[in-house]
Amino acid sequence: MDPFAGLLLLLFIVVVAAALGRWIAVKLDQPPVLGELVMGALVGNVGYALRIPFFEMVMNMAALQNINAMVWNTGAPVREIIDRIMAGDGPVISGMMEKILSGPGAVDLVNMGFGLWVFSNLGVVLLLFKVGLETNIVDMLRVGGRASAVAIVGTIAPFILGYLGSLALAPNAPQTVHIFLGATLCATSVGITARVFSDLKHLQSREARIVLGAAVIDDVLGLIVLAVVAGIVTTGHISLGKIAGVSLLSVLFLGTVLLVGERLAHFGMKIFRRLDPFHLKLLYPLSLMFLFSWFSAFIGLAPIVGAFAAGLVLNEALFAARDARHAPLEDIIYPLEGLFAPIFFVLMGMQVNFATFADPHILALAGVLVVAAVIGKLVSGLAAGGGASRLTIGIGMLPRGEVGLIFASIGKSIGAVNDALYSALVIVIILTTVVTPPALKFALSRKPPQPETT
Amino acid sequence: MDPFAGLLLLLFIVVVAAALGRWIAVKLDQPPVLGELVMGALVGNVGYALRIPFFEMVMNMAALQNINAMVWNTGAPVREIIDRIMAGDGPVISGMMEKILSGPGAVDLVNMGFGLWVFSNLGVVLLLFKVGLETNIVDMLRVGGRASAVAIVGTIAPFILGYLGSLALAPNAPQTVHIFLGATLCATSVGITARVFSDLKHLQSREARIVLGAAVIDDVLGLIVLAVVAGIVTTGHISLGKIAGVSLLSVLFLGTVLLVGERLAHFGMKIFRRLDPFHLKLLYPLSLMFLFSWFSAFIGLAPIVGAFAAGLVLNEALFAARDARHAPLEDIIYPLEGLFAPIFFVLMGMQVNFATFADPHILALAGVLVVAAVIGKLVSGLAAGGGASRLTIGIGMLPRGEVGLIFASIGKSIGAVNDALYSALVIVIILTTVVTPPALKFALSRKPPQPETT
Repeated sequence: MDPFAGLLLLLFIVVVAAALGRWIAVKLDQPPVLGELVMGALVGNVGYALRIPFFEMVMNMAALQNINAMVWNTGAPVREIIDRIMAGDGPVISGMMEKILSGPGAVDLVNMGFGLWVFSNLGVVLLLFKVGLETNIVDMLRVGGRASAVAIVGTIAPFILGYLGSLALAPNAPQTVHIFLGATLCATSVGITARVFSDLKHLQSREARIVLGAAVIDDVLGLIVLAVVAGIVTTGHISLGKIAGVSLLSVLFLGTVLLVGERLAHFGMKIFRRLDPFHLKLLYPLSLMFLFSWFSAFIGLAPIVGAFAAGLVLNEALFAARDARHAPLEDIIYPLEGLFAPIFFVLMGMQVNFATFADPHILALAGVLVVAAVIGKLVSGLAAGGGASRLTIGIGMLPRGEVGLIFASIGKSIGAVNDALYSALVIVIILTTVVTPPALKFALSRKPPQPETT
Repeated sequence: MDPFAGLLLLLFIVVVAAALGRWIAVKLDQPPVLGELVMGALVGNVGYALRIPFFEMVMNMAALQNINAMVWNTGAPVREIIDRIMAGDGPVISGMMEKILSGPGAVDLVNMGFGLWVFSNLGVVLLLFKVGLETNIVDMLRVGGRASAVAIVGTIAPFILGYLGSLALAPNAPQTVHIFLGATLCATSVGITARVFSDLKHLQSREARIVLGAAVIDDVLGLIVLAVVAGIVTTGHISLGKIAGVSLLSVLFLGTVLLVGERLAHFGMKIFRRLDPFHLKLLYPLSLMFLFSWFSAFIGLAPIVGAFAAGLVLNEALFAARDARHAPLEDIIYPLEGLFAPIFFVLMGMQVNFATFADPHILALAGVLVVAAVIGKLVSGLAAGGGASRLTIGIGMLPRGEVGLIFASIGKSIGAVNDALYSALVIVIILTTVVTPPALKFALSRKPPQPETT
């Protein structure tokens, strides 16, 4: 059978599951994205309970990424690598992964998992690109000060609360544990929030702009925090040079985009129009999105920051009515975003392991951290000042999503976070992510949509 | 750096290279798809000559697929597997692959290569789906007899010519060699031809319909030939049960599609409309495409046969004007197809190794096989009868593309084809593929477009 076949079936299942999830969410008067997340979690956990190898693998997607990297980068056999890096997960889980990832048919599962991961990554990049297209630079700059204030408070408050919570629960643990837990709580994953604002037609509100701006700045601050914390944990001291480098590059990139981005986009468009006038309006925006999101990742930021920036600098006015296939930009991007973005949310849901909630000790730890995580970000909403709903902004900053997961797995890999703490962090990430869509809908229902105000 | 970053940069490069290729092709009055193929070949060979690891890997994409499969399916270390399966390629090539695919950073290259392969597969599926959308069942049935005749002659003639050519060149080689060479020449890859007809706005011509129908039937015949030949080579006899099974399933699938496909599509659409009315016109067609192309692969046909079938059963009339986002179906599919299909052609170009053309012995072998391959398919055009250009149909059947590559690599893996023969077959596949766009353009220029005739 063609090796691409498994992925085709998987795409069919995910597209239909996402549609079913949206249908249920709409029936229950919830944002569609919550339906995709929950349907992903249901399918994933039922599949996991039935011991279907694909779902067992997806539940350990982060481990799969690490195993794949080690298999190629070290050249060691698959089983040896699983023994080495999954020792902390216990013999049941690591034995399960050995059975799935090694032996006849394993490659089909790996290919399906990797393919889904590729489409999911493309999906979240397209989502933030679309959100960027619907936002413009002037509006973003207008809320720049407020967004910065929200981002700074939203980084410092969860850090301090997480640090103190960890200290109170485990006073004898090393300092590095407290620092890492605090740092993980700083993360903001803007995908969920952006999608809810978009679903509820609130992307043009002042709140949406402040949250989007704050999320971008938060990504830069998170990068700096990670450089500081990883430096302390691994070398015992802070590398000022590295932090200065990271900060400078981020500021240069975002500054260039904000100040001369539109002119650069116009210049690039003129070149592309000569090259390929027929596909200009599809492929020029996408080229810019690929380039910016790669560059953003290249300097250490998340790819979605670059994708959002690419969307910001592009606008309808750039293209002439005489351009072939002159549909509105959003209509041209819609089929791509509409297919791939739900894959991101379904896959995120599929990685929520209900079994994690069974250990009371971990649940208690998670409970304390969730309180710190929620209060820390709600406080950041206060920095938004007047003229915008502080509650909405605070809730919009809540989800940790994949950014929090990346922090937690770095902490695990450098030994700052043990398995129990890691599980607790995963619960925090799940709860802050899943609670956001209904909470945001509730907060938004308290005020009418503001399509034109600033 | 984010593990998805490399793929983002690669997408940028491929999209821009494809646009540049189309630009040059249009300047030289050639079909755009030829520009994508040749630009892929240029970029690939320059990168290969400069010893850039990514291009060295892509040049051996088929080997990468096999290595990846063995790494997971056997659990053996990467280097050991490369030693085992690339022994026939000589120490230079296998040493190069060991260096690329094992050691620090190898996983980034593997991920990039695999990601590009995923997008390229999606691209060709979307291309044939789009072609199916622009074709309808009644028109296909009307040319059914002629298409069957073309497919049958187009399978038998190249087989006999390839068998005799091989016998003349190497009278002492075992029978299995002659049989396998003949079988490889039977393949038809409809991607290139469909794209040229589409580029030149000839999809509605009688020639296009006959070639498309013949290509689908040819895929079924190819499957039967493969079952026969592989049976003879590996077990020494023909498994009539397997051949009957393969034939029956193919006929059942295609028969169901042709006879009740439209009714089934209508029924599925009503369910999907209840589930997700807002995304109906994007996600219902895509779901059907994923399902049909998976099913097609599941019974042993190429995924593109199913994608084409899904396109055939869908039509504009299925959707109501009241459906949200009611743009024409082709406009909704265009952004997906316009982004991904060129990736298929660029990647196909990148796998053309100019070094293959340097060995005079292989070139002579290839020369004989090319003549057999071209004459065999041109003869099939004669079976098209009156009312259509026989030359156009014969040329449309020429490209072997990825279908031929699959045949050749199966032959290599079961030992029926040695390295020299394999290289010669690759040259045949390259030449029949690259010569088609300009030849088809020439043949079509001899008659005006026929948008409405049948």
